[in-house]
Amino acid sequence: MPEFKEIPVIRYEGADSDSPYAFKQYNPDEIIAGKSMKDHLRFSAAYWHTFNADGSDPFGAGTMRRSWDALGGLDRAKARVESAFEFYDRLGLPYFAFHDVDIVPEGASLSETNRNLDVIVAMIKEYMESSGVKLLWNTVNAFTHPRYVHGAATSCSADVFAYAAASVKKGLEVGKELGAENYVFWGGREGYETLLNTDLKLEQDHLAAFLKMAVDYAGEIGFDAQFLIEPKPMEPTKHQYDYDVATSLSFLQQYGLAEHFKFNIEANHATLAGHTFEHELRVARIRGMLGSVDANQGDPLIGWDTDEFPTDLYATTLAMYEILQNGGLGRGGLNFDAKVRRASFESEDLIHAHIAGMDAFAVGLKVAAKLMDDGVLEKNIGERYESFTSGIGLEIQEGRTDFKKLEAYALGLKEIRNRSGRQERLKAIVNQAILGVR
Amino acid sequence: MPEFKEIPVIRYEGADSDSPYAFKQYNPDEIIAGKSMKDHLRFSAAYWHTFNADGSDPFGAGTMRRSWDALGGLDRAKARVESAFEFYDRLGLPYFAFHDVDIVPEGASLSETNRNLDVIVAMIKEYMESSGVKLLWNTVNAFTHPRYVHGAATSCSADVFAYAAASVKKGLEVGKELGAENYVFWGGREGYETLLNTDLKLEQDHLAAFLKMAVDYAGEIGFDAQFLIEPKPMEPTKHQYDYDVATSLSFLQQYGLAEHFKFNIEANHATLAGHTFEHELRVARIRGMLGSVDANQGDPLIGWDTDEFPTDLYATTLAMYEILQNGGLGRGGLNFDAKVRRASFESEDLIHAHIAGMDAFAVGLKVAAKLMDDGVLEKNIGERYESFTSGIGLEIQEGRTDFKKLEAYALGLKEIRNRSGRQERLKAIVNQAILGVR
Amino acid sequence: MPEFKEIPVIRYEGADSDSPYAFKQYNPDEIIAGKSMKDHLRFSAAYWHTFNADGSDPFGAGTMRRSWDALGGLDRAKARVESAFEFYDRLGLPYFAFHDVDIVPEGASLSETNRNLDVIVAMIKEYMESSGVKLLWNTVNAFTHPRYVHGAATSCSADVFAYAAASVKKGLEVGKELGAENYVFWGGREGYETLLNTDLKLEQDHLAAFLKMAVDYAGEIGFDAQFLIEPKPMEPTKHQYDYDVATSLSFLQQYGLAEHFKFNIEANHATLAGHTFEHELRVARIRGMLGSVDANQGDPLIGWDTDEFPTDLYATTLAMYEILQNGGLGRGGLNFDAKVRRASFESEDLIHAHIAGMDAFAVGLKVAAKLMDDGVLEKNIGERYESFTSGIGLEIQEGRTDFKKLEAYALGLKEIRNRSGRQERLKAIVNQAILGVR
Amino acid sequence: MPEFKEIPVIRYEGADSDSPYAFKQYNPDEIIAGKSMKDHLRFSAAYWHTFNADGSDPFGAGTMRRSWDALGGLDRAKARVESAFEFYDRLGLPYFAFHDVDIVPEGASLSETNRNLDVIVAMIKEYMESSGVKLLWNTVNAFTHPRYVHGAATSCSADVFAYAAASVKKGLEVGKELGAENYVFWGGREGYETLLNTDLKLEQDHLAAFLKMAVDYAGEIGFDAQFLIEPKPMEPTKHQYDYDVATSLSFLQQYGLAEHFKFNIEANHATLAGHTFEHELRVARIRGMLGSVDANQGDPLIGWDTDEFPTDLYATTLAMYEILQNGGLGRGGLNFDAKVRRASFESEDLIHAHIAGMDAFAVGLKVAAKLMDDGVLEKNIGERYESFTSGIGLEIQEGRTDFKKLEAYALGLKEIRNRSGRQERLKAIVNQAILGVR
Repeated sequence: MPEFKEIPVIRYEGADSDSPYAFKQYNPDEIIAGKSMKDHLRFSAAYWHTFNADGSDPFGAGTMRRSWDALGGLDRAKARVESAFEFYDRLGLPYFAFHDVDIVPEGASLSETNRNLDVIVAMIKEYMESSGVKLLWNTVNAFTHPRYVHGAATSCSADVFAYAAASVKKGLEVGKELGAENYVFWGGREGYETLLNTDLKLEQDHLAAFLKMAVDYAGEIGFDAQFLIEPKPMEPTKHQYDYDVATSLSFLQQYGLAEHFKFNIEANHATLAGHTFEHELRVARIRGMLGSVDANQGDPLIGWDTDEFPTDLYATTLAMYEILQNGGLGRGGLNFDAKVRRASFESEDLIHAHIAGMDAFAVGLKVAAKLMDDGVLEKNIGERYESFTSGIGLEIQEGRTDFKKLEAYALGLKEIRNRSGRQERLKAIVNQAILGVR
Repeated sequence: MPEFKEIPVIRYEGADSDSPYAFKQYNPDEIIAGKSMKDHLRFSAAYWHTFNADGSDPFGAGTMRRSWDALGGLDRAKARVESAFEFYDRLGLPYFAFHDVDIVPEGASLSETNRNLDVIVAMIKEYMESSGVKLLWNTVNAFTHPRYVHGAATSCSADVFAYAAASVKKGLEVGKELGAENYVFWGGREGYETLLNTDLKLEQDHLAAFLKMAVDYAGEIGFDAQFLIEPKPMEPTKHQYDYDVATSLSFLQQYGLAEHFKFNIEANHATLAGHTFEHELRVARIRGMLGSVDANQGDPLIGWDTDEFPTDLYATTLAMYEILQNGGLGRGGLNFDAKVRRASFESEDLIHAHIAGMDAFAVGLKVAAKLMDDGVLEKNIGERYESFTSGIGLEIQEGRTDFKKLEAYALGLKEIRNRSGRQERLKAIVNQAILGVR
Repeated sequence: MPEFKEIPVIRYEGADSDSPYAFKQYNPDEIIAGKSMKDHLRFSAAYWHTFNADGSDPFGAGTMRRSWDALGGLDRAKARVESAFEFYDRLGLPYFAFHDVDIVPEGASLSETNRNLDVIVAMIKEYMESSGVKLLWNTVNAFTHPRYVHGAATSCSADVFAYAAASVKKGLEVGKELGAENYVFWGGREGYETLLNTDLKLEQDHLAAFLKMAVDYAGEIGFDAQFLIEPKPMEPTKHQYDYDVATSLSFLQQYGLAEHFKFNIEANHATLAGHTFEHELRVARIRGMLGSVDANQGDPLIGWDTDEFPTDLYATTLAMYEILQNGGLGRGGLNFDAKVRRASFESEDLIHAHIAGMDAFAVGLKVAAKLMDDGVLEKNIGERYESFTSGIGLEIQEGRTDFKKLEAYALGLKEIRNRSGRQERLKAIVNQAILGVR
Repeated sequence: MPEFKEIPVIRYEGADSDSPYAFKQYNPDEIIAGKSMKDHLRFSAAYWHTFNADGSDPFGAGTMRRSWDALGGLDRAKARVESAFEFYDRLGLPYFAFHDVDIVPEGASLSETNRNLDVIVAMIKEYMESSGVKLLWNTVNAFTHPRYVHGAATSCSADVFAYAAASVKKGLEVGKELGAENYVFWGGREGYETLLNTDLKLEQDHLAAFLKMAVDYAGEIGFDAQFLIEPKPMEPTKHQYDYDVATSLSFLQQYGLAEHFKFNIEANHATLAGHTFEHELRVARIRGMLGSVDANQGDPLIGWDTDEFPTDLYATTLAMYEILQNGGLGRGGLNFDAKVRRASFESEDLIHAHIAGMDAFAVGLKVAAKLMDDGVLEKNIGERYESFTSGIGLEIQEGRTDFKKLEAYALGLKEIRNRSGRQERLKAIVNQAILGVR
């Protein structure tokens, strides 16, 4: 039941290739800034979008038919695993990521679900060993099932809290078993629908307690993955507690959890929160909290999470610039939390979409490396803030002044001269850098 | 040169009054929940919108002509003071608020500006004493002058930082002189236009250093006002560092400043950040950081800061609900950071607008007090979270459990039952409460 | 298998009723402005939201379990009909509305679907006759099935166009059989996902041809319902051709179809298009195109179609004002195209939600009638435009002038005086009118 | 008093030039698709942004100081003209555009303003003749002056209507005198602030009457410029009547004016209306109404008109694709209705910004020409809609069928097969085309 084997994917052929199935910029072994593209980018496929999604939306039924649809239960789960590793192999994807219920059907009880997981996790482990493909991160889906209607860790029901805890306990065990590099918390229903019925503080206290127990249990079983919070402002709920990086950081600081977590930053979640992708990456970076990336893009004119494959070269360039400035993503990677459009329902579209996204990030990497190598942006920044490297500026910088001294200084100023921020010129530089890539 | 004296304002006449100049719901001395309306609401007029604004917008010149326009320099400033106190008296406004350059023309030098301030502050002090009107808060405008083109405390120029420091030093002295109850920091240009030329961490370090020096200097001179941060996500800059309450809280926590500040929350700034007004109030409240309120409203279909007078009874009700839950605003108040529309250019419109806003908050207070008195929302919330008051829920609540115990519990669960969140019913209850007010 | 019978709904009890199941403002037989409330408001239930929806969303499974879920196929369809008419009776709803596939399961073939329709339509007809409940409108769902992935009348496949035509043919026959007062066209997939693969003009030509054939066929079979276009800007597609009233009107004018159609205006679709609800109603009204209303509301801070039950009294007031100015809705009505929140999953919530919506529109009707009766808004408008009733203004109004005459006049003008638009005062008047309702 | 002469602008040097003042892609004489770049692009400078704007915004004073600021009255106007033509020469700009009050100070009376215009228009005419620079379009500013607070042609004051008519009469005369290729109507205040005080139909009737008189007067004086409507949804007013292309088209159709007008489409106005730039161009194109372009861009995360210089290569590519498909812009051009950021306050930034924009459109032209030459998008579209070229599809296309025939056909269909829309692949193709440009 091969789903992808017949599609004639071609590894790197260069920009001049005519084949729609050829990589044109992503050459995994090419060395950029001292490291292979593959090591820089650490691409990952998202199980849910690629092997579970069927193209349904709030106004329409599924459009995508896959080979595994003919099967049911665990047989379908197994067929998915086979196709998934076939897919990773076709595209040279070194990582993947999943939620528990992506890889198995949820059972009638918690113990049945756990048994299902045991079967499929064992199978995945074998495939991982034979293929060398690794698990970027796993997570537990605590938002789809009706029990989570009011949240999981922030549910108003203690039973739901307990159930979610048990599921995440299993998720941590699964992560350990498969050697996950990270473990992600996306609080899809951890938020509120209306403040009229919500005890905001109590819910956040519970969320913190939950995360603390997760940290403790991971320590107990020796699961050393990096824990990641994935911010998103809204959808499905009206307001989600992990609104954006700054909000989530405030929460972690409030509850003394900041040292245990970094962020998994998704482009489309950034824009839904009113921020650029690079803004969220930068905010996390300067606080040492940039963990991993969900590589997708939204439509700036659309108000919901479209999770499109990333093709905007500006976004990939500026994202890779932040990542290079961060010294890379460490244990994180670029996970394609992206779905082909409902109208792109053929299996082939999954290939086209991943190539489009991988090529786009390869371009972004090259452009960002070029910009850093040229030092053009950094040099400009250095000059802009130069006044803080001597005199009164240095005193400010080193904390050796106060309002009285500053007033004395200011009273002596004749004229204050500013220099242009040169935004238009800087944008032209980025354009030229992109056009310089082949 | 009276500007407002001829307008026949009438204090509380009740809902049935036919006069367009009569208060219909705001009866300052009426007791609600144990306190007079006046003490609950602590209304304040915003000097800038009411006495400085002229109705200009990015596409149009000023439309508003006031009596003081005929004068120039300090004479105009003095005429404004006279009219301002006339205005407070007409409407029974107990508080006002201003930026330094609202009350004086900026001089050719820092020392000239300071001399101007000395003159007008002395005059204002006399008016305050004779009228009993008090200063809710003052602040320094560090965003209008071209020197602040790249920010004030976050400017890339050390000279600008120093100038802003000197201005705020004077602002703190002015606040002390006039007995300001609060001092506000709104960082209109403390943000960035493009990340391409911005050292985000350096700028935030500088902002923190600046605030620390302000705290120190206030301590030094014995100015005991509550310091307030006023969050706003954007406009004038593309991104402002005090994006919303959670972001600003994260910043304060990061730099160890949280104990010295509370928030001044503006309705229109909340909606520009993608939040409801009540959300921002709630987030501040549960962290003990709700300081004061800029009482206005935005147009939900418009993407800029319209600063309209608050007339939406839902917003005033839910805001007053948070304020009552907070035990009031303490030293804070409801400052009308609101401007009459450009087309409402007659002096009379300032009267109409303030009456509209004061009546709207009076209704909000009555409805919120009624809702609290009935306990209908709190009772529902109590029942919703009841499962955390005994059994496994209580163990969670008291931090006496862990993932293993929770799993054991969850494995024993037969069926998890949730109850409806009843959002539609709760909204109907709010409607009935509003309609119940006279 | 009664779904709603046990819920103790109470017809009008007045605002002071304590019962959560009692109407507090909607008194069907109360006469307002010469007509009963029932005749003004012509409420309708939406089959899809009330009897088909299960609370699923893009991130979650259904939460709502209804009595008919135990059954399958036509038996389920029949059980729904029973419950639906039980529901109409409980609430005194005089109208309902449906899509073809709301009332029957889609068959394996077109003919099977049509046979299913024949069975259920006959059953509905009996229930309508015995209950007196009438069909406000019916329509055909040409967006959910995968065949419509690229549109229906605007599909790039001629087969899909033909299939949609056959379905709408049946839909018109069903409408005639049940005496539908209107027939609605909502083009859920009539739009594009990307211009890169779209022949915009061809698609619009096809849509016009399709509508023309529908008009012709209705004429042929003597189905005299009012045809309605329902504008929506986006969702599910990125761009829908019936973006808003003005866009749809332009389309109808372009293809000579304007005389055959009016608009079915939905509040949430208006706000998604950047307009207020009342704006869309006004634009349709002044062109004689206001047909019917989908009574719901969106969340102004959320970018997707939330289809909430209408509880905002400002929206209901301003909507009813337009409707009264229009002389009523004629054959149209107020259809609750609204869904209870996913967390409001109990059957009882459907009752609460409809009562909340009906009461909100009853208030809106009373306030609007009061405003019209007082003439306060109209009087102000009369005065504002008074200059066009004499002199040069009248010449402009009557088309008796030209640029040369106007220039001669303008050259003689000394000063042009404008008067305030009084927006703040007008908003206060609306508040007082709402607060005056019991 | 040279403003720009010292800036070392260098005409086309190719992508490898190191100079920040060199064009890297815009080579005016290079032939693309049979025409020189200069003839394709017809670039124009906007007088208001480039020679009048000072960098002020609603929260800040002007930051830009130009050489002409030292002068006043007509002397300043004259100095601006000198610098403007110096600027056109430096950059090789073949066109410019202005509002009446950009080029002269408004006088104390209409006749004084007209006399000012006579002086400066004569001067501009001489400069045009000696330089060969032409007027792309002129217009009249009927939105800035306080008299237009309630609109111009849609004002509630007949005097204001008359004044605006007289101004536009003069504007048409000025356009004729200078050989303007187009005349633009942007209705900055032709809209409403609140429906509560607005007679929507009367205002639109007046607007139509006004436009009709303008058409008549242009005919009378033999001014044969193309008349253009410039849509914008909001800002400065809450709702503007020329919301977007479709809305404006509906208006023109309603009043029988469509044959006299085309559209001037601005990128940032498109996005404020919820559309992509290419969408608005496409809608105008398929109706034969694409007249000219205001070449700028907005910030998709910001809700006001930022009027940034166009640097997004996706936008310029897709815009140029529409323009090439349109057979060019005819008498229209690409007018940089764009302003340097407030922080880009040096004269040099105007040079950088225009080069950035001109290069970006040069790239867009090259990529679009390449895409058309390859035929890759058109070929895909041809295949997608192929089913309408024979059989039942052709009958639909040619209007030879009806619902009964279509039903008969549909009843005979076995399976309907759709093909993928291939959106991800198409986006990758666009990326490769951009990267293929040098």
